[in-house]
Amino acid sequence: MASAPPVEALLFDVFGTVVDWRTSVSRELSEFGARSGHTADWEAFADAWRGLYQPAMEEVRLGCRPWTILDTLHRESLVTLLEQFAVTGLSDDEIDYLNRAWHRLDPWPDSVAGLARLKTKFTLATISNGNIALLVNMAKRAELPWDAILGAEPARAYKPMPEAYLRTAQFLAMAPERCMLVAAHNDDLTRAASLGMRTAFIRRPTEYGPHQTKDLEPSGEWDTVADSFCELADQLGC
Amino acid sequence: MASAPPVEALLFDVFGTVVDWRTSVSRELSEFGARSGHTADWEAFADAWRGLYQPAMEEVRLGCRPWTILDTLHRESLVTLLEQFAVTGLSDDEIDYLNRAWHRLDPWPDSVAGLARLKTKFTLATISNGNIALLVNMAKRAELPWDAILGAEPARAYKPMPEAYLRTAQFLAMAPERCMLVAAHNDDLTRAASLGMRTAFIRRPTEYGPHQTKDLEPSGEWDTVADSFCELADQLGC
Repeated sequence: MASAPPVEALLFDVFGTVVDWRTSVSRELSEFGARSGHTADWEAFADAWRGLYQPAMEEVRLGCRPWTILDTLHRESLVTLLEQFAVTGLSDDEIDYLNRAWHRLDPWPDSVAGLARLKTKFTLATISNGNIALLVNMAKRAELPWDAILGAEPARAYKPMPEAYLRTAQFLAMAPERCMLVAAHNDDLTRAASLGMRTAFIRRPTEYGPHQTKDLEPSGEWDTVADSFCELADQLGC
Repeated sequence: MASAPPVEALLFDVFGTVVDWRTSVSRELSEFGARSGHTADWEAFADAWRGLYQPAMEEVRLGCRPWTILDTLHRESLVTLLEQFAVTGLSDDEIDYLNRAWHRLDPWPDSVAGLARLKTKFTLATISNGNIALLVNMAKRAELPWDAILGAEPARAYKPMPEAYLRTAQFLAMAPERCMLVAAHNDDLTRAASLGMRTAFIRRPTEYGPHQTKDLEPSGEWDTVADSFCELADQLGC
């Protein structure tokens, strides 16, 4: 087999791969509830919020609505769920604050140390459906050392649309085969591989909580499989 | 006078403000000449290359040609100037390498230390006419600690078009008055101020070489004037 050209950029899926959205959003909701006297099953609320993520983006992907950033989609879903969970009487500022829970997600324990090592050898960019402000605020709070914040908003296309991947590589002036997608989700990796990118699967077996059933193991012939970014750094010689 | 809202993001012009393009490009050209046996007045070549910068972008601004990134404009200018300076016989790879001299610009001596201090208090983003790959490669080589690489390419508009400034603020989800443009160029600051942004003028009296005649002093009522990013950090309480 002819050797593949060396990878120059690592493109990171963010929600679930770099940060633990479920624990963080549940915590934010529950702290807000405790402060404001609202009660609900906040883990179920977080799961339901994430459950509306794909349908909301699908409207944009299908062209049923013009390009809309994730903060806006998240906020619409939040308003729906506050009503469903009978959490009432919130001000616009309170809703905005809660919506920015997605800007305050905590990294997995290995993320910051692993990224620091990977950064010595590769260009590190996000390839996330999160909008730029969300990712910038998250990175500043969590100290994620990105070289570039890329993904859906600059590409104006949500994953798994091919444009989201191809435009991200193009922004870096790199052929897709010089880019490796790092993700905890097999479907994301399937699309990236189909476009010529290299692939790294990271096991995040509690992303969806203690009873997670999907993405527990790699389902494709990915170039690399690791349990953490530190293990990925070992494998990539950093 | 009512107090202005606090600044949250510093948006940096890059060529001339953060990096010393003239010295760096002259050095790159002259090193290439020494290696390859070509001779020319490389400082004059660097000045001529920069001289074609505004006219090339103006074609795009006026809509005479579709959106085109700076690497492409730079390369076209380079090919023109190689002929003008009678530097002949270069391969496409050599021309590409020379073109990426703009990815290898050195920061002014205060840039890295000043940015590190400013980063503790503000979101730091580029607002440059350079394309994303150029700015990412420059930052990695020069260790410029940007929180986000923004500017003309994601905004799809070259400064001083208003969209370049307004879309950059929008990507950060910030009102223009929460953003401060940091630039060594009065005309850049004039446009930013007209759009509601705050302004910091940095003196870079040798950007255009020892006989510089423009932008030696602030020509407007800028919020802040400093001789270095470290002085700016002092003034902004970092």
